[in-house]
Amino acid sequence: MRSVDEHRAAIAALVPGPRAVDVPVADALGLVLARDVPAPLSLPPFTNSAMDGYAVRASEAPAGAVLPVAFDVPAGRTDVPALAPGAACRIMTGAPVPDGADAIVPVERTDGGVERVRIDEAPEPGRYFRAAGSDIVAGDTALRGGETVRPALVGFAAALGLTTVPVLAPLHVAVLSTGSELVEPGTPLRPGQIYESNAPMLAAAIREAGATAEIVRFVADDADAFLARLAERVAAGGIDLVVTSGGVSAGAYEVVKDALADRGVEFVKVAMQPGMPQGCGTVGFDDGLRVPFVTFPGNPVSALVSFEVFLRPALRAAMGLPGRPRRSARLAEAVESIPGKRQYLRGFLRTETDGTDSVSVVGGPGSHYLRWLSRANCLMDVPAKVEKLAAGAPVDVIALDP
Amino acid sequence: MRSVDEHRAAIAALVPGPRAVDVPVADALGLVLARDVPAPLSLPPFTNSAMDGYAVRASEAPAGAVLPVAFDVPAGRTDVPALAPGAACRIMTGAPVPDGADAIVPVERTDGGVERVRIDEAPEPGRYFRAAGSDIVAGDTALRGGETVRPALVGFAAALGLTTVPVLAPLHVAVLSTGSELVEPGTPLRPGQIYESNAPMLAAAIREAGATAEIVRFVADDADAFLARLAERVAAGGIDLVVTSGGVSAGAYEVVKDALADRGVEFVKVAMQPGMPQGCGTVGFDDGLRVPFVTFPGNPVSALVSFEVFLRPALRAAMGLPGRPRRSARLAEAVESIPGKRQYLRGFLRTETDGTDSVSVVGGPGSHYLRWLSRANCLMDVPAKVEKLAAGAPVDVIALDP
Repeated sequence: MRSVDEHRAAIAALVPGPRAVDVPVADALGLVLARDVPAPLSLPPFTNSAMDGYAVRASEAPAGAVLPVAFDVPAGRTDVPALAPGAACRIMTGAPVPDGADAIVPVERTDGGVERVRIDEAPEPGRYFRAAGSDIVAGDTALRGGETVRPALVGFAAALGLTTVPVLAPLHVAVLSTGSELVEPGTPLRPGQIYESNAPMLAAAIREAGATAEIVRFVADDADAFLARLAERVAAGGIDLVVTSGGVSAGAYEVVKDALADRGVEFVKVAMQPGMPQGCGTVGFDDGLRVPFVTFPGNPVSALVSFEVFLRPALRAAMGLPGRPRRSARLAEAVESIPGKRQYLRGFLRTETDGTDSVSVVGGPGSHYLRWLSRANCLMDVPAKVEKLAAGAPVDVIALDP
Repeated sequence: MRSVDEHRAAIAALVPGPRAVDVPVADALGLVLARDVPAPLSLPPFTNSAMDGYAVRASEAPAGAVLPVAFDVPAGRTDVPALAPGAACRIMTGAPVPDGADAIVPVERTDGGVERVRIDEAPEPGRYFRAAGSDIVAGDTALRGGETVRPALVGFAAALGLTTVPVLAPLHVAVLSTGSELVEPGTPLRPGQIYESNAPMLAAAIREAGATAEIVRFVADDADAFLARLAERVAAGGIDLVVTSGGVSAGAYEVVKDALADRGVEFVKVAMQPGMPQGCGTVGFDDGLRVPFVTFPGNPVSALVSFEVFLRPALRAAMGLPGRPRRSARLAEAVESIPGKRQYLRGFLRTETDGTDSVSVVGGPGSHYLRWLSRANCLMDVPAKVEKLAAGAPVDVIALDP
């Protein structure tokens, strides 16, 4: 049997590597900058006032001076004349400082006059000036490759006049679940049928990981129909990866295995619980199209654990985003494990009043227990060689925070 | 002057409270369930096999027994007959167990026969049965109000056949920045003009907080045009809150103040730096429409700090989502602060090798420094009474993680 680490490496090798793409600034939130971007202009682009007040020559504006107000400079005025000697001008926050002025007197330190103004407090030269280029000078590195785009960075990029930024492209994943027993929610259930839940669950997990997902409508357990549906979608373009669930175990009707085993997907057993039957490989379609496939087992718990263990790390790495941190927690109760299989138990992690982390098992080991899966907030990673862990023993946990 | 806490309370009172809304399951990711939802059906809906193998009567299937294979039960078969005494049937994982069978023999413990099967190992009754209702019984509480929708919960809801779930509605915020000096990125800049960056920055911050945002195209510094544009958008519906930036300070051209001061918005000074000029209130439009307004100052740093301090907590609370945690960090360098004003310094927080958190100031106090704002990962909250903090002193920090 293949080890978890071996299969994780196989999937990491399969997932497309980081690819730079220019996206509108507003769409870049949460993505990672692909490279440094120099400032196309200086910020501020021109020296402007930090206060509402009056622009003056400091030498002409001692306390008590009365100066004629030659003109107004509202923010946005594009035709600001030079300030004549002996005059003041009204100036608003953000408005360009006229040539000739070397000081700003805040309105609160004047009588606020419109035609002439009395200075109550002498200004310091240069104070309340926002000098051109004081935030950044044109040509300097403005955006740094590897940084994640946050709201302030959106603002910075917009202030620089950028309409797009280069980011590591979010991968686009097609999700397809198989099984003749599956029925779409919203339609009546006949005996023997269940509602399809893996595709929406995996699509949500992919989106939460920062990638994009689409669900390819599932089909009956028929290998030809399965391949035809996929070929059609792949030919339409835009798919970086296909993820399937179901159809990979030892049964007589295993559509994913039947369709893909001779087309480049290797089906293996991985020494883990849940999630033993796994597969991955690159599938060739007509016109030379080749698409990486990852095949997960169909039990919901197995499918989501497989995503967390194998695919999420590779997706995040390809987008330059960090993986989930691991930490150690104290077991709230004894745990038994299957020797020879690395076990991923669903757990509930909490921080105790003494500041330490403790973790308890949520629900049983059955891989169909969606209720318990939905109430877990972590996975415990129990090594393959472990058969039993006592209450209080440390165990590695992976918190499933967004 | 109003204190930060007083103004935060005023805004919290203004923002609409939690409102339940049914949304498609796939759109609920990251939102909070508005109420408990009972299971509309049991899971599994019917007793099914956990293994690919044979359904038998355990008493008829000791090791070495050879049984005729009466029929196959693939997953999804809806017309499964009862199992006749003395017979076996092939059964796939997830397929319904036929009436009469009380045990599953995994295929690995048989000869795998198609017409007749040899049992190599006697089964335990009930083992490898997934009993109807073993995950959840119809009518029991399936989804719990107050829980955040995560991928596993999406899967659980879908498995229950739910097409929508009741969640606390994400607030929809209209963002509008004002200023005649503002130009859209992508157009040439004339002297005295700057690129508009507050609206995209605030929209990104609102989205990152889990709400939705739209930018209302900004207008010139003209109160009538400003009101007309807003009235038009408000009348179209769907706006929970309007956020403006700019136009609220002491200058001669303050469009937001001019337009809204007589219409229910109170403009105040808050004892903080940056972000002193603030406003909030409910504005009435024609047809009795009343919409809450929050007005931020126009300097980019002031605008984003104002969002973090005043609006984000209220938005998150209205959606049932937690606010940002606060913690204490050690100052990497001495910090001076303005007495009488609560100061929010941009900082870079890092965890040192000894596990403690330290924080250093990023850039200067100027509220137009977008470059430094984009490189900060926290705000330091320095109380109003503090004038100076020594290097090594503890300071409260608010990490700006998504």
